[in-house]
Amino acid sequence: MNILEIISKKRDAKELSKQEIEFFIQEYTKGEIHDYQAAALVMAIYINGMNDREITDLTLAMAHSGEILDLSRFGKNIVDKHSTGGVGDKVSIILLPIIAALGIPVAKMSGRGLGFTGGTVDKMESIPGYRTNVDIDEFIKNVEKVGISMIGQTMNLAPADKKIYALRDSISCVENIPLIASSIMSKKIASGANKIVIDVTVGKGAFMKNKEDAQKLSEQMVKIGKLAGREVRCVMTPMDEPLGYAVGNSLEVIEAINFLKGDMPKDLKEVVLELGSNMIALAGKGKNIEENKVKILETIENGKAYDKLIQMVKNQGGDISYIKDTAKFKKSKYISAVVTEKTGIVKEINAEEIGKLACYLGAGRINKEDKIEENVGIILNKKVGDRVEKQDFLAYICANNKAKLVQAEQKILEIYKIM
Amino acid sequence: MNILEIISKKRDAKELSKQEIEFFIQEYTKGEIHDYQAAALVMAIYINGMNDREITDLTLAMAHSGEILDLSRFGKNIVDKHSTGGVGDKVSIILLPIIAALGIPVAKMSGRGLGFTGGTVDKMESIPGYRTNVDIDEFIKNVEKVGISMIGQTMNLAPADKKIYALRDSISCVENIPLIASSIMSKKIASGANKIVIDVTVGKGAFMKNKEDAQKLSEQMVKIGKLAGREVRCVMTPMDEPLGYAVGNSLEVIEAINFLKGDMPKDLKEVVLELGSNMIALAGKGKNIEENKVKILETIENGKAYDKLIQMVKNQGGDISYIKDTAKFKKSKYISAVVTEKTGIVKEINAEEIGKLACYLGAGRINKEDKIEENVGIILNKKVGDRVEKQDFLAYICANNKAKLVQAEQKILEIYKIM
Repeated sequence: MNILEIISKKRDAKELSKQEIEFFIQEYTKGEIHDYQAAALVMAIYINGMNDREITDLTLAMAHSGEILDLSRFGKNIVDKHSTGGVGDKVSIILLPIIAALGIPVAKMSGRGLGFTGGTVDKMESIPGYRTNVDIDEFIKNVEKVGISMIGQTMNLAPADKKIYALRDSISCVENIPLIASSIMSKKIASGANKIVIDVTVGKGAFMKNKEDAQKLSEQMVKIGKLAGREVRCVMTPMDEPLGYAVGNSLEVIEAINFLKGDMPKDLKEVVLELGSNMIALAGKGKNIEENKVKILETIENGKAYDKLIQMVKNQGGDISYIKDTAKFKKSKYISAVVTEKTGIVKEINAEEIGKLACYLGAGRINKEDKIEENVGIILNKKVGDRVEKQDFLAYICANNKAKLVQAEQKILEIYKIM
Repeated sequence: MNILEIISKKRDAKELSKQEIEFFIQEYTKGEIHDYQAAALVMAIYINGMNDREITDLTLAMAHSGEILDLSRFGKNIVDKHSTGGVGDKVSIILLPIIAALGIPVAKMSGRGLGFTGGTVDKMESIPGYRTNVDIDEFIKNVEKVGISMIGQTMNLAPADKKIYALRDSISCVENIPLIASSIMSKKIASGANKIVIDVTVGKGAFMKNKEDAQKLSEQMVKIGKLAGREVRCVMTPMDEPLGYAVGNSLEVIEAINFLKGDMPKDLKEVVLELGSNMIALAGKGKNIEENKVKILETIENGKAYDKLIQMVKNQGGDISYIKDTAKFKKSKYISAVVTEKTGIVKEINAEEIGKLACYLGAGRINKEDKIEENVGIILNKKVGDRVEKQDFLAYICANNKAKLVQAEQKILEIYKIM
């Protein structure tokens, strides 16, 4: 077997065998296959496609290119959750304590933010003392002790996927459903879950700009799951405007804490209920989705979800006085309200634009090595559909730099489409 | 303009503009575009194709990526000749002195051999003293003085083509008509000719394995010529068995000299007449192809072509006593006749296999830096269609290494298909 034969097969739109796909992934991970050869093959896959069997073999080969987290001690019904990305997405911080409070073990490794979407790990780190860099033994012990642990990616999960993702980014091969599906699923399989709920975001602030593509991606991931022996449910959620009101690390953590205390923004609540009810179903704790939603709301109302968050944060070294009193979170140097001169209805708040603006303020990374500022970002005051009058506050800018603050105020006025 | 946009356009089977193609070629030549990006684009071109305008722009951009030889002082009818490659192809050494003897200036830069086909420069260098490494001023002066000069590629011609060709070789993108056509034509345009005759070889020992592909390649090169303002004629010639009898550097030079002395193997004669008659027509020295063939034969018979070879070799430092008496060429250490045990008709002598065998004996290069042995190779004694009896000599092996000699004898018996 050699890479030239494999490239020429896919170039001619032929089917690759499991052995050929594994050979490519293994040798490319080792550096035995050149980037330019992988680039040619990836482009051929992009144009000529792959069938479900090939996509599944690619997914499994990438999943097995590094370590695999073994969660079998928690039984067969351990459920993972993934989102294809959004702005203001603090769903994991809200939903996972709820799930754990319902007696379903949660062992969650999250990523850091890159580009205009934030990462759960960065957000959790804005809680003083909370350790995300926890080794696997402690991680497992934490789940056994309090039923939940949320950490960063401390294992070498699916390194082939990382390498291929970076390559795709530099050869215009990102927007391809088989490649996106296998990338997501390889990481999830390496993270050890048998059952996976995937939030497929759709809209201006999402990877998938329209419902048709989101539907195709969902179907592809369910098929991979079926062939790879993992139960997958996809939930499509809108991502045109940011989710909830807060965008920025500690700002989102505060919103998540408030949510568990009962202050639930409508759009965020819908996503939490949709994803959560399906996770409960997958975990074998209730088939009826509507009943599951009620259970979630009860778990919030009776304070058990909030208690679970406190338990988890405490167990991982976090200062729970911040959870109890979110006013303790250190504020940014400048906080400024953006005032509108218009009257009308908010028609659009482009989530990607807001994400980029938060990133510009220091909430996210342009490059991997960038440091983030925990307390900067944007708090929306008006959302799509809201009526605004002249002199109303549209949003608040939290910044540590005066020039950026001024720029951001101007930008907010441009982003809000009021008619 | 950026490479990611260019890649995504061709990925989506859209047409690239002249500016986009020029940007790619210039930046890739400079090293500003990565190999993996070029690989992705080349694969997209391979699969999605290019129209005639794009192929012509690619050809011209590659031609202008380095120096361009200016032959305008020789008028508008300077004719170049190219072959898509074959085994035993000593046509240039025979034909170009004929053309020069007919009063048409010949300024020919040739390549070295790589892989199983030989290169004219390597062959010419087997004439003691003959200098192929001549600078451009001297090259031009030689053409002015004796009407002909044959040298190696001393200019930096079409470096983009070299780079892309090497890349194509390592990403399974060699066998593609638009890419082959633009590669050939870019080098020819950089070599300064306005009129070009191309020998498109077809068969087991050629790049093009069948007539349909050879026809397509021919049409493509004629179209490029038309759009780029160069008159191109393609002549398809068979390349199943080696051309003539000799394969190996000095062995082929001897056969070429003998040809000009009147000893003309039938297949070689046909190719010389076909190509030569078209070159004469392109140079404006006679429209009638059949009459041109007669002129060529007259130029051989009256000794003028032979005299022109002598003049050229002398002018470039070569020892003409070798031309006058080919017995002076140093023989290989071993020469052995391969005897057959079969009786029948020779049905096949695979040219590629013979080319590889000559290469194995030391006549060619596997890698660019390999040294070649001038006097090794194979002299066929029987050709396809010949009748052989038991104990007849099929071929002679010329080798400098006993073990290789023995191997080659065995191999010849396998290559000759006698039925």
